[in-house]
Amino acid sequence: MADLSIKMLSAVEVDLKSQIDSIRTDRTNEIIEMMTYHMGWSGQGAGQNVSGKRLRPLFNLLSFQALLPNTASDDDWKKSLPSATAIELIHNFSLIHDDIEDNSDKRRGRETVWKKWGIPQAINTGDAMFSLAHHAMHRLRAAFPAENVLRSTDVLLETCTQLTNGQFLDMSYETREELTVEDYWPMIEGKTAALLSSCSTIGAILSGADEANINHMTHFGKYLGLAFQIQDDLLGIWGEETKTGKSAASDLLTRKKSYPILLSLSKKADFFDAWNKGLFVPAQIPHLTQVMRDDGTYHEVKAKSLELTRISLENLSACQITGEAGELLTTITHQLLDREI
Amino acid sequence: MADLSIKMLSAVEVDLKSQIDSIRTDRTNEIIEMMTYHMGWSGQGAGQNVSGKRLRPLFNLLSFQALLPNTASDDDWKKSLPSATAIELIHNFSLIHDDIEDNSDKRRGRETVWKKWGIPQAINTGDAMFSLAHHAMHRLRAAFPAENVLRSTDVLLETCTQLTNGQFLDMSYETREELTVEDYWPMIEGKTAALLSSCSTIGAILSGADEANINHMTHFGKYLGLAFQIQDDLLGIWGEETKTGKSAASDLLTRKKSYPILLSLSKKADFFDAWNKGLFVPAQIPHLTQVMRDDGTYHEVKAKSLELTRISLENLSACQITGEAGELLTTITHQLLDREI
Repeated sequence: MADLSIKMLSAVEVDLKSQIDSIRTDRTNEIIEMMTYHMGWSGQGAGQNVSGKRLRPLFNLLSFQALLPNTASDDDWKKSLPSATAIELIHNFSLIHDDIEDNSDKRRGRETVWKKWGIPQAINTGDAMFSLAHHAMHRLRAAFPAENVLRSTDVLLETCTQLTNGQFLDMSYETREELTVEDYWPMIEGKTAALLSSCSTIGAILSGADEANINHMTHFGKYLGLAFQIQDDLLGIWGEETKTGKSAASDLLTRKKSYPILLSLSKKADFFDAWNKGLFVPAQIPHLTQVMRDDGTYHEVKAKSLELTRISLENLSACQITGEAGELLTTITHQLLDREI
Repeated sequence: MADLSIKMLSAVEVDLKSQIDSIRTDRTNEIIEMMTYHMGWSGQGAGQNVSGKRLRPLFNLLSFQALLPNTASDDDWKKSLPSATAIELIHNFSLIHDDIEDNSDKRRGRETVWKKWGIPQAINTGDAMFSLAHHAMHRLRAAFPAENVLRSTDVLLETCTQLTNGQFLDMSYETREELTVEDYWPMIEGKTAALLSSCSTIGAILSGADEANINHMTHFGKYLGLAFQIQDDLLGIWGEETKTGKSAASDLLTRKKSYPILLSLSKKADFFDAWNKGLFVPAQIPHLTQVMRDDGTYHEVKAKSLELTRISLENLSACQITGEAGELLTTITHQLLDREI
């Protein structure tokens, strides 16, 4: 990985730690302990491989730096660290709550916060992290005009509303059988695309970019998020475990309302009939993935993924992004969207 | 109740409804339904007696109007409605989550949101209300300079951190037997005093008050909150159900770590011995409340309540509050702190 992104990621980690530590009091150390455990810094199995990739803060800092005027210094991105921290904290607050809502015992191989500390403390710690994220945004005031800070915070708040809308849909879909492909988009726009879009939008706003560029960066992030999710859904059906770390066909066994599954169901053909007979068993999977190729689902999902990728990259190209940050942003976006399936 | 407070409360209700409705989408109506149910506007038993008193927004608007310069118009408080709405939404978001964390089935005689819609949806709806509160703060921008909006939002965020700290302590005290009176204060400072203090502080900031007055208003709200909580604790032991609606001695039966109970325990005398024999039964209560009078607890708690009340009122008097709003603020504060026990 390039020098600049290593520098950025390491600075993000320092800033995240200091933001979390800012609310430590003698009596509430355990809140900090839950947060640092969740972030992958403490407790059993702590280390980089359980910390998450911090992609969102990286996208935020790169977007900011790439859109600065040529006169900017190479390390101006440091001014925007509070927004990178805020975005990562929003992401992690939502993971802590989602794990309760989805009844998930494990995250990255470790027990989830609610599993270790109980649901009441996990809800409260998520709330504390939510507040902390917005505290971080206010630290931007040290380097940016109040109007830009308020506008950026507005974007993050709108994202939070979209996250809860997306999560609401995801949960309500669990008990609904009659779903269409149209039901899918508002869910992933809320759950995945909104936060990625806020990374690039906030970067653009803080860099002082004009409205046209801000708009392009919003769409860049949004379509990147959508393309990424569609690709993730492809991996959930046709991925190879050795290459992706994700068990092939796992989404079929868990009956996840993913894009390929909703699309194949919409054809009301062989897959639809098989689905309605009840839960699948592992032995059926090779046949089912072939059915979903034969009915055109694989091809159509792949085409949709390419279309979304194209829109994302077109919006990025339309911006006057410059320097090492600009190149990195383009490279990392390509890497993300070219994951092998 | 005076005309002005009726006008304010009615405007708050309209503003709250419109703020909540602002996130309605075709697919997420149920989030709005959960919110309007919780606010007491819809569902079984809806009506004013299940809506809560909206004391916090009223204190916020009165503080604002009372500190405006004499040249201000009588209905300038309308400009500050978004902050009143934000504060009430923060209060209610925390109630939705607290009800889950405390395993409370009922609130004001009705099923709680989690009891009706399940824990996952209730967590998510609380999160959505949290975001909405901060959205409301940003609407202040229409009438106030960006710097004042940011400073007010900072106060509210700090309050949110304190709320989660207070709730953390409350939960962790449930399983701790060795508590002292000193453990009590940080808990209620977080759970009760912080939000009341933010009502008067934000009112003062937005009114353009000077630092000395802002500081007085912060202390006015904080000590009002502490005094109110101590009085609530007194009612939980010596209150008469007919007068207060609160069952006398209920805190003894539920073993709540209230101020009188911690104080009486700290004497390591008769009450301490009785407590350590295990749960109380209703027949013991008359004797126990007398024990807590005889050991001086009642007297000391009453004295503490009066001391806190005095500090609160002194801070209010130190401000140059004016007009009908100033008078009302003083009157309502006195009423709140003179609840019969």
